[in-house]
Amino acid sequence: MNQDDLFFMAEALVEAEKALVLDEVPIGAVIVYKGEIYARGHNLRESLADPTAHAEIVAIRKAAAKRGSWRLHGMTIYVTLEPCPMCAGALVNARLDRLVFGAFDPKAGAAGSVMNIVANEHLNHRLSIEGGLCSEQAGELLTRFFQRKR
Amino acid sequence: MNQDDLFFMAEALVEAEKALVLDEVPIGAVIVYKGEIYARGHNLRESLADPTAHAEIVAIRKAAAKRGSWRLHGMTIYVTLEPCPMCAGALVNARLDRLVFGAFDPKAGAAGSVMNIVANEHLNHRLSIEGGLCSEQAGELLTRFFQRKR
Repeated sequence: MNQDDLFFMAEALVEAEKALVLDEVPIGAVIVYKGEIYARGHNLRESLADPTAHAEIVAIRKAAAKRGSWRLHGMTIYVTLEPCPMCAGALVNARLDRLVFGAFDPKAGAAGSVMNIVANEHLNHRLSIEGGLCSEQAGELLTRFFQRKR
Repeated sequence: MNQDDLFFMAEALVEAEKALVLDEVPIGAVIVYKGEIYARGHNLRESLADPTAHAEIVAIRKAAAKRGSWRLHGMTIYVTLEPCPMCAGALVNARLDRLVFGAFDPKAGAAGSVMNIVANEHLNHRLSIEGGLCSEQAGELLTRFFQRKR
């Protein structure tokens, strides 16, 4: 854990708060390139009626549009929850260097919990992974959301 | 194999041909609801500079926009190549009923070849799968593309 990682994860948590305000499952992400935030995203699945509009996918699509390339070499993504299989696969397809995530997801996590797509020897690209950063804050946001839903 | 499946896979192959014309890896998909084509898509990764713009994701996003919901219950997707982990995860997230695919992908296929995300007992939704339909035609398109690249 380093101070930069904490700083950027705090920004991902800000994104998750934006999702919460929209009554979306509160998950946020930022993509960092050369020490600066390059793209941001939060879950918009309900707002956009788009099953692919998870925080990671929203941020990846913005970063790729900004770079003008689908290849996001040299970038790190910070996301408040362990990616699902779709998002983990997107991180591999986009060739990001590194994944830092907050809370582990024992139900659908694809960066080690249920399966590991992000660093899978069978696939043609692997990211380095750090999990559990600020997991309490990330988890607390999710708990608040699901308690409100009951 | 039934005649309807052959008909819709032929339409997915038409989509793959559209990708080939654009110098994209030739993969195509159609989503079918109540016996009719509901959405179509082909790979646009290079054209859109979007690592998520695989044929399946393009078709899923169109179908969800048309339905006004991220839940695509009752729908079948026909795709010319076995889905990658990202696309397989998207099929699960979108709650489609059934996947019919053409060629198997021994390098990245996530509907049985390298892993199985589409019918995974750990995840909260599973699709029924039929693989290998019109695999020769689907494979021939891919071979033509990669030979041209050399």
